[in-house]
Amino acid sequence: MSPIDAVRALTFDVFGTVVDWRGSLVREGEAFGRARGLAVDWGRFADDWRGLYQPSMERVRTGAAPWTNLDALHRMSLDRVLAQHGIKGLEEADIDHLNRAWHRLDPWPDAVAGMTRLRLRYPLATLSNGNVALLVAMARRAGLPWDAILGAEVAQAYKPLPKAYLTTAALLGLAPEQCMLVAAHVSDLVAARGCGFRTAFVRRPREYGPRPADVLPQDHGFDVVAEDFLDLADKLGAA
Amino acid sequence: MSPIDAVRALTFDVFGTVVDWRGSLVREGEAFGRARGLAVDWGRFADDWRGLYQPSMERVRTGAAPWTNLDALHRMSLDRVLAQHGIKGLEEADIDHLNRAWHRLDPWPDAVAGMTRLRLRYPLATLSNGNVALLVAMARRAGLPWDAILGAEVAQAYKPLPKAYLTTAALLGLAPEQCMLVAAHVSDLVAARGCGFRTAFVRRPREYGPRPADVLPQDHGFDVVAEDFLDLADKLGAA
Repeated sequence: MSPIDAVRALTFDVFGTVVDWRGSLVREGEAFGRARGLAVDWGRFADDWRGLYQPSMERVRTGAAPWTNLDALHRMSLDRVLAQHGIKGLEEADIDHLNRAWHRLDPWPDAVAGMTRLRLRYPLATLSNGNVALLVAMARRAGLPWDAILGAEVAQAYKPLPKAYLTTAALLGLAPEQCMLVAAHVSDLVAARGCGFRTAFVRRPREYGPRPADVLPQDHGFDVVAEDFLDLADKLGAA
Repeated sequence: MSPIDAVRALTFDVFGTVVDWRGSLVREGEAFGRARGLAVDWGRFADDWRGLYQPSMERVRTGAAPWTNLDALHRMSLDRVLAQHGIKGLEEADIDHLNRAWHRLDPWPDAVAGMTRLRLRYPLATLSNGNVALLVAMARRAGLPWDAILGAEVAQAYKPLPKAYLTTAALLGLAPEQCMLVAAHVSDLVAARGCGFRTAFVRRPREYGPRPADVLPQDHGFDVVAEDFLDLADKLGAA
């Protein structure tokens, strides 16, 4: 019996694994900038914004800040990045619209088709640091067929804290060993495995645009390594 | 402007409002009894089991018992009802299967079609006392198109405690006034309204089989009163 046989639900990292956050932020930024006559390097803008992602969560993880959901962290980071890029005088509604670009991220081309196949065999849940409202809006726009929106906000703990993984498994009524995390990031999978989860690494070489992504040059011993969600469906026997 | 114009999400009571718990438990019980040669009045069995529902949650609400999810409360109640009905000697796997009859409840005939229309206009979330695993299993079997599985377990508070409603609204990123509760029970709607929710009463006259259900003889001032989910879709302008 393979360790995969015990799996009863698939849980997914979302940013970078299911959706192309960088390409989508550049698309959103360019449309935003065109409409307002702003000259901005939106690739750099996206990288700078995302660069504040881990530090902003770390303040919550360590207890230096109280629980704050990702929409609110994104907004605090956005205010800083706007200032860094010399963008001033935007209306509150404009800044809010830009902040919600994270609600309008596009899936990788294989994501919906792969999830649709995987869902015939397994319940699919988010295990993301994104907040529920963000993930619901994203799923409705992109057509992502989730069975449940779980993860950091529901657990009140950001990955890679164990509580994020363990609460998600418990809400699914499963032992960690019955859950698989699907992710494009080694650190996330290593943390999930430490909690008992099964692991599926999916290569997303374009996540960071021109910068290199996790491409898994060495063997990390994950249960599955897949080229995309269709390959994952093949490897998990999901017709 | 009508109070309904501000609504940005629909939240649903599930047992009795979306699914026919009593008819489904009788169906499950009869199949279970036939396979094991048990002579049981499954209508009375269902009523007795459901009769322990509020008392079991009340122990959690008052703090007399720690947080316990509905699958676990159902199981404690089931053990008592099996004894009351003189049913002995079942295997653990059989009792667990019977307990999960709550995962296999059938929707009312209009539910999926009505939700499918409503979902084009609003995100749809559970606001049920059922636990996440129960609601996910039910939705997958019955084809209920939820955008999010929220409610008591995620809030760690059983309705009608305000925390159940307020946490659900907060996770949706909305003010209570932007949420509508759809329910077949006056007490649930009154509690939701007390938290600021908009309210839609849906008549489910067959919920209790031969016993009378809430049929709303008097005017409670709910924002919408509907005959079923298709009528609700009409009244909310959801094509």
